[in-house]
Amino acid sequence: MSAGAGFTLGRLAEVLDATLDAHPERVVTGVATLASAGPTDVAFVADRRHLEAARVSRAGAFLTSPEVTGLPAPMLGCRDPRRALAEVLALFHPPTLPAAGVDASAHIAADARVDPTASIGALAVVESGASIGPRVRVDPLVYIGARAEIGEDSVLFPRVVIYAGSRLGRRVIVHAGAVIGADGFGFIPASHGHQKVLQVGIVVVEDDVEIGANSTIDRATLGETVIGRGTKIDNLVQVGHNVEIGEHTLVAAQVGIGGSARLGANVVLGGQVGIGDHVKVGDGAVLAGQSGVAQDVGPGARLTGTWPRPVAQAMRIWLAEEKLPELIRSLKRVEERLQALEALAIKSAGARQ
Amino acid sequence: MSAGAGFTLGRLAEVLDATLDAHPERVVTGVATLASAGPTDVAFVADRRHLEAARVSRAGAFLTSPEVTGLPAPMLGCRDPRRALAEVLALFHPPTLPAAGVDASAHIAADARVDPTASIGALAVVESGASIGPRVRVDPLVYIGARAEIGEDSVLFPRVVIYAGSRLGRRVIVHAGAVIGADGFGFIPASHGHQKVLQVGIVVVEDDVEIGANSTIDRATLGETVIGRGTKIDNLVQVGHNVEIGEHTLVAAQVGIGGSARLGANVVLGGQVGIGDHVKVGDGAVLAGQSGVAQDVGPGARLTGTWPRPVAQAMRIWLAEEKLPELIRSLKRVEERLQALEALAIKSAGARQ
Amino acid sequence: MSAGAGFTLGRLAEVLDATLDAHPERVVTGVATLASAGPTDVAFVADRRHLEAARVSRAGAFLTSPEVTGLPAPMLGCRDPRRALAEVLALFHPPTLPAAGVDASAHIAADARVDPTASIGALAVVESGASIGPRVRVDPLVYIGARAEIGEDSVLFPRVVIYAGSRLGRRVIVHAGAVIGADGFGFIPASHGHQKVLQVGIVVVEDDVEIGANSTIDRATLGETVIGRGTKIDNLVQVGHNVEIGEHTLVAAQVGIGGSARLGANVVLGGQVGIGDHVKVGDGAVLAGQSGVAQDVGPGARLTGTWPRPVAQAMRIWLAEEKLPELIRSLKRVEERLQALEALAIKSAGARQ
Repeated sequence: MSAGAGFTLGRLAEVLDATLDAHPERVVTGVATLASAGPTDVAFVADRRHLEAARVSRAGAFLTSPEVTGLPAPMLGCRDPRRALAEVLALFHPPTLPAAGVDASAHIAADARVDPTASIGALAVVESGASIGPRVRVDPLVYIGARAEIGEDSVLFPRVVIYAGSRLGRRVIVHAGAVIGADGFGFIPASHGHQKVLQVGIVVVEDDVEIGANSTIDRATLGETVIGRGTKIDNLVQVGHNVEIGEHTLVAAQVGIGGSARLGANVVLGGQVGIGDHVKVGDGAVLAGQSGVAQDVGPGARLTGTWPRPVAQAMRIWLAEEKLPELIRSLKRVEERLQALEALAIKSAGARQ
Repeated sequence: MSAGAGFTLGRLAEVLDATLDAHPERVVTGVATLASAGPTDVAFVADRRHLEAARVSRAGAFLTSPEVTGLPAPMLGCRDPRRALAEVLALFHPPTLPAAGVDASAHIAADARVDPTASIGALAVVESGASIGPRVRVDPLVYIGARAEIGEDSVLFPRVVIYAGSRLGRRVIVHAGAVIGADGFGFIPASHGHQKVLQVGIVVVEDDVEIGANSTIDRATLGETVIGRGTKIDNLVQVGHNVEIGEHTLVAAQVGIGGSARLGANVVLGGQVGIGDHVKVGDGAVLAGQSGVAQDVGPGARLTGTWPRPVAQAMRIWLAEEKLPELIRSLKRVEERLQALEALAIKSAGARQ
Repeated sequence: MSAGAGFTLGRLAEVLDATLDAHPERVVTGVATLASAGPTDVAFVADRRHLEAARVSRAGAFLTSPEVTGLPAPMLGCRDPRRALAEVLALFHPPTLPAAGVDASAHIAADARVDPTASIGALAVVESGASIGPRVRVDPLVYIGARAEIGEDSVLFPRVVIYAGSRLGRRVIVHAGAVIGADGFGFIPASHGHQKVLQVGIVVVEDDVEIGANSTIDRATLGETVIGRGTKIDNLVQVGHNVEIGEHTLVAAQVGIGGSARLGANVVLGGQVGIGDHVKVGDGAVLAGQSGVAQDVGPGARLTGTWPRPVAQAMRIWLAEEKLPELIRSLKRVEERLQALEALAIKSAGARQ
């Protein structure tokens, strides 16, 4: 987990805009967990629950918040330790591009365009008319269909499948096994069962999108399925035909998005959320894990549940539900007491008459 | 998105049994969305919400329902516009079979049978004793295990895996990354943990089935897992061992079907539905998205929810739940008032004595 | 479904510690379902519901429990018929290792270590520094990244992807399409959207683990994602970065486990369960299908639902919910009756004064 000659703590403090309590000249060569770090590693103290592990860590330095004291090695005090970790990881793991060029075992159609700075791995297949941009990395066993376009600096991990005609922007990352552009699920009733509606549209993936392993993004029936710029999609996610997702939206693992749904920008979908066909989800909406929505969701809404509700209301109902069986019994007793009182009232009314 | 020399509007009207209000001699060469259509495209007006987009579309003709008027180009009035769209897509996109033959880079076992009219793509692997029928299309990087059978006119998209012994019927479509015939999840308790139960059955996929990208259909422990004729399965669906699905059933994305479950014909499962092991679902049952069933479901039932209920009842309960916290408070007040009345009744009874 | 010369029923009775009512010299050569078995097959009678099918089966012998009588062929009476089935399947289907050696079409980096007893299939890719142990079976089209390690007797089915640095133990089985070691879903907010947190940890899969088709197990941000010894994972399961799963845990299909979650030993997760980020699940806990947990679960708990509850309580609430709409109406009537009584009480109090 180390890279090159390492960095002095003084240099790290400067880059991270962090405080440093000792040994600016000490050199660290890697980042590691508290448990596995050695004297040449910097380790990350995520929060106070990890202080005990930090006290017995052999790390050569700690990334932590400025309030922390008393650790057994120099401390880099950072206002935002998570961001500092991201920066340190990037420092110690600079991107390494495989050598440019096409592996001799790859199958490249005669009329495909592969930029000379791109790298095409072993046993990859690039079909007729496809276009692979500058510095693109195509890993072994990837399939790129006819006329597909892959923008500069994108990375396709092993075994990705890009169906014919799909267009990927710049700096797109697609993890192993993802399938971009398979047919949408479109059928109409016919006398002999279900008749397939041909799916002749495409998928457009804009710049800076990341797509997780084994996720599937269907081509449009007509037109385009669109994944907006900067949106991040986790593993095993399903995106239906003609879906449009806005910019910088986060889609956690195993989410399913039905055909023609529209998601805004900066939406956050928790794991296993389901979005119905044609549903619109407004900018900035947050849906908790396993929520299911069949109706439109307004901008900024924070919902949970199948047939979801606002999170606070759902919590109140969930707590109230625990009292429901007792409530039924209580009401029965109330009705009996009421009946006794009514009988008494009738009797005493009779007595008064 | 065009095919060949195109069609006159008059010819389209004839084929679609549609009305046409003008220009029967005009030629269109493709189908496109309202937004992207040009003067040689026919565009589709799905419903009244799209009329505004249609009025500013540059399309050369419109597919629409007969009531619509006033669009800026000739209108093909169809009783069922969705069906007409399916027909027009098929007209403009006739199937194109890749050239018959086996790519030189494919690995075909010496005793595999490949029909001379089949097409086997680059880097595909066909194992010993497998059989590939007439006009089958096997895309690059597909794996077909020993003794597997693929029926005529079937299409296996890139990277499909067919395990040994699986049998696919005619006109079956399997999308990229789907895995047919992996081991079922079968274990028995043993002193040292879980002991694997060997899975020696097969998967049988009948005619006209379509299976989505990255879906998984497990082989039977013994005997057969069966996907009935004409059934359509979306992406990322799991079908457990020894499941039997009837004819013309629709299974949306991310559904999971437990081992030995039995689904009837014409069942509809919404996205992310879960069916428990050994559960039976009757013909024509409809389960809404995210439903989970652990007990048998009768024919024609329309259910929703985990531990599902009839849709109408579930809706009533969902609405009632919102009043639950208030209900608890109301009952508390009722009990207090009741106590006060009872105290009064005791007092006045005392007074009367 | 037969293997070799078969076994006499007497020998089977001995191996299975079963009773046998007739024909110890009869030879059976395979295992089959009741419906498909012929005179040389032994068939399995799972429970009393299958007795009718057994009575008309053509099987040469039956595996059943000792109480069963009156079947049309010799009966092997086993105290635990499911276990006996597992043993008989193993007897009739002994493991067959493909011939050792590397297929000429595989791509093996010069400095990868492949044990001479391992088998590497057609078009597999093994990257620099990877290590393949004794008797490992690597199927066609598998990708093994740089420095990955595969322990002895493991099996990687076609098209598995192992990212760089992952470590698999001994006797691990990974089914087709599974992806081990893709990046975790880690981003931090940045001025221009979401900034990727590099994922530089690894995945460690311990001995005797089985991983289902198209499942995805993410590498750690730092350190290790760990799948404990003997744990079995079904198809289409997502395991997030830095997750640790204990020994002998069962994870059914389509489960999603969020980042940094900790699962104990002998946990059972039903299909489509969701576990939130950082959640701890104690040893032996059982979560029913589709449960979702955002908070820690104690050892041995048996829960169900999103925001789950103990199964018995959930069942009581579910039953009570059906009365909820009626409950609201009842309470309204109670309030009216109470008001009438109160009015009466005030009047009669007035009358007494």
